[in-house]
Amino acid sequence: MIITFMTDFGTKDGYVGSVKGVLLKEAPDALIVDVTHEIPPFNIPQAAYCLLNYYNSFPDRTVHLVVVDPGVGSERKPLIIQTMNYHFVGPDNGVFDFVLKKEAYRAFEILPELVNPEGYSSTFHGRDIFAPAAALLAKGVKPEEIGAPLDRVIINDKKELACQGNICKIPIVSVDHFGNIIFALSREDLKHWKKSIKLVNFKTFSSQTILEYYAQQEPGKPLALWNSQNMLEIALTQGRAADFFNVNPEKDRAVIELTDVS
Amino acid sequence: MIITFMTDFGTKDGYVGSVKGVLLKEAPDALIVDVTHEIPPFNIPQAAYCLLNYYNSFPDRTVHLVVVDPGVGSERKPLIIQTMNYHFVGPDNGVFDFVLKKEAYRAFEILPELVNPEGYSSTFHGRDIFAPAAALLAKGVKPEEIGAPLDRVIINDKKELACQGNICKIPIVSVDHFGNIIFALSREDLKHWKKSIKLVNFKTFSSQTILEYYAQQEPGKPLALWNSQNMLEIALTQGRAADFFNVNPEKDRAVIELTDVS
Amino acid sequence: MIITFMTDFGTKDGYVGSVKGVLLKEAPDALIVDVTHEIPPFNIPQAAYCLLNYYNSFPDRTVHLVVVDPGVGSERKPLIIQTMNYHFVGPDNGVFDFVLKKEAYRAFEILPELVNPEGYSSTFHGRDIFAPAAALLAKGVKPEEIGAPLDRVIINDKKELACQGNICKIPIVSVDHFGNIIFALSREDLKHWKKSIKLVNFKTFSSQTILEYYAQQEPGKPLALWNSQNMLEIALTQGRAADFFNVNPEKDRAVIELTDVS
Repeated sequence: MIITFMTDFGTKDGYVGSVKGVLLKEAPDALIVDVTHEIPPFNIPQAAYCLLNYYNSFPDRTVHLVVVDPGVGSERKPLIIQTMNYHFVGPDNGVFDFVLKKEAYRAFEILPELVNPEGYSSTFHGRDIFAPAAALLAKGVKPEEIGAPLDRVIINDKKELACQGNICKIPIVSVDHFGNIIFALSREDLKHWKKSIKLVNFKTFSSQTILEYYAQQEPGKPLALWNSQNMLEIALTQGRAADFFNVNPEKDRAVIELTDVS
Repeated sequence: MIITFMTDFGTKDGYVGSVKGVLLKEAPDALIVDVTHEIPPFNIPQAAYCLLNYYNSFPDRTVHLVVVDPGVGSERKPLIIQTMNYHFVGPDNGVFDFVLKKEAYRAFEILPELVNPEGYSSTFHGRDIFAPAAALLAKGVKPEEIGAPLDRVIINDKKELACQGNICKIPIVSVDHFGNIIFALSREDLKHWKKSIKLVNFKTFSSQTILEYYAQQEPGKPLALWNSQNMLEIALTQGRAADFFNVNPEKDRAVIELTDVS
Repeated sequence: MIITFMTDFGTKDGYVGSVKGVLLKEAPDALIVDVTHEIPPFNIPQAAYCLLNYYNSFPDRTVHLVVVDPGVGSERKPLIIQTMNYHFVGPDNGVFDFVLKKEAYRAFEILPELVNPEGYSSTFHGRDIFAPAAALLAKGVKPEEIGAPLDRVIINDKKELACQGNICKIPIVSVDHFGNIIFALSREDLKHWKKSIKLVNFKTFSSQTILEYYAQQEPGKPLALWNSQNMLEIALTQGRAADFFNVNPEKDRAVIELTDVS
């Protein structure tokens, strides 16, 4: 069984190593797949976007372990999310925002004494609660055997898109490794609304065309395109759009004008 | 059989890849577990601290391969350390300091001609000596079959804590990825001495309380706590203590006042 | 079967994770070995040098997947390179330069509709074309079943060494993680030419001796040596030669004087 593994720990301190040891002790036959340990510390929206990009490319029954957990030791609950095809394990702080939007799910609060009867630290739930829970799920234990059903989970997403008539302001979801700027608008949203894009404005950039790939624009010039997740992206061919536009991911918005699809 | 793998190589040059190839050629059934390749170049104390954090979370018989090796090609010996549960492979330069303090062990000097009869480079013992040795151990070869017993190994630890009566100066072991400052004092030390902490001073910070988790302090304020390894740590809730205090890990010391446990 | 994996994606966005999911869905028994995801974005020469360092340390029949692909979506072809012992999968842009120089090979252009009948994006061939091709090869599919034979592949290498009589100017292949400077000259080149080195000059450094390991020079002083790949390297014992010499990897050249081997 596969356990994917995402954290904001970095690797140099051995914290990631210690979690892997716990996983392999509890579930010796599990295949641990590193996704990343380089989420910027405590950056929950980046963790949520990262998860969106990979979770559904994995085989059914994969367990997705996500430990980006600024509130460790506080009241925040340890979660299991069960969807049609996957289990997700991590803190109840918004790291599962995109999954919860896209999937039907059941939520459980992990009961620490059931996953780690030997006791657990107050500062490292990744090792002491989340890893044992993920290992047990990978071995076929059911969420209800180690957790209590939960009615509500926390949605962190504070930056919703805002529309007035056909004009929408779209917040930034992520600036990726290549400096591409990804916005909170998908092709599915437009299809759902029966709209198409007439105009995209972002700072000095304005375009009536949403392209399909980077090489459709000449190097050094910005373009808007639907990216590989079908989300709106502004990029700079063979350059870094985020630097070109001096982007502030918290504050900047794209402004788009929509038109009805006939 | 599991082989964990820690280096200071970074990954972009393919040196880590070449070692993995050697391991898999020699021991095709071994499970290679990346711990980190981001130890700061030549930083032996950080490697020792990293190893402390993960080695004993792994299943028995795991082989821990550590290649942080500024003295490659010089007189420094290639080592195997055998403890009750594990084998360790790496240079004799202090990377095993914490393990040697905590575990009963036997030490062996690897005999290169026995692990790599085809010959080896003078600049890349990770690939040519340590990896073949680790692979052989993972396959069940005994240390005495590829190494010569060694009476003494090198302890690198130059920064010991220093006490006068009940006042101790505690050096810094590591500044971790989150900017937490970890000191060379553990709960076990206090238990052993039959002492408890009356007061911790570090630069502008002073506290009579050692907390259990970060969320016990409000964001932006420093706290002292016992971390997940039961070591003394000074942290800043949701911030970087090392930046807050402008820490020099080589020179700065915490000063603690102890009191007898009755 | 082993699939090694190199990209310039970084890991924080989950793009690497999504490719791993595709590989494991298509080839559940494959062993994915991370080489690096930290190639500097779009740096094809660094990818080529990285690959040189690890490809032939792996067991026969390993599939080497390389996705450093600034031209994604353009005319550049998706490639399979077949050598005596390995398959290589990646873009036709020079990432295989060193392999093509050292190995006899056959080249194929991947036919996307044969590896991904469900269709593919224009921006993420790593996930949609290269990964399915690598997975199929790992499962034993033959290159000719998913690709068309190709007569010519692109060689990116623009920085050739230039000799006039016994004086050669040698460009820089890579500056590695430790700041070592690696030059485009190997021991095999000299053997082939029946020459040996009489003098190496690089900026302020001049030496008549090519050493074997770092510790032969005192700390803080530069040296020339044959590195673990038998390539000419200028290093600084326990320091960073690239910083010491303020290197420009694009422009700087070593100048060597050769002499006949009698």
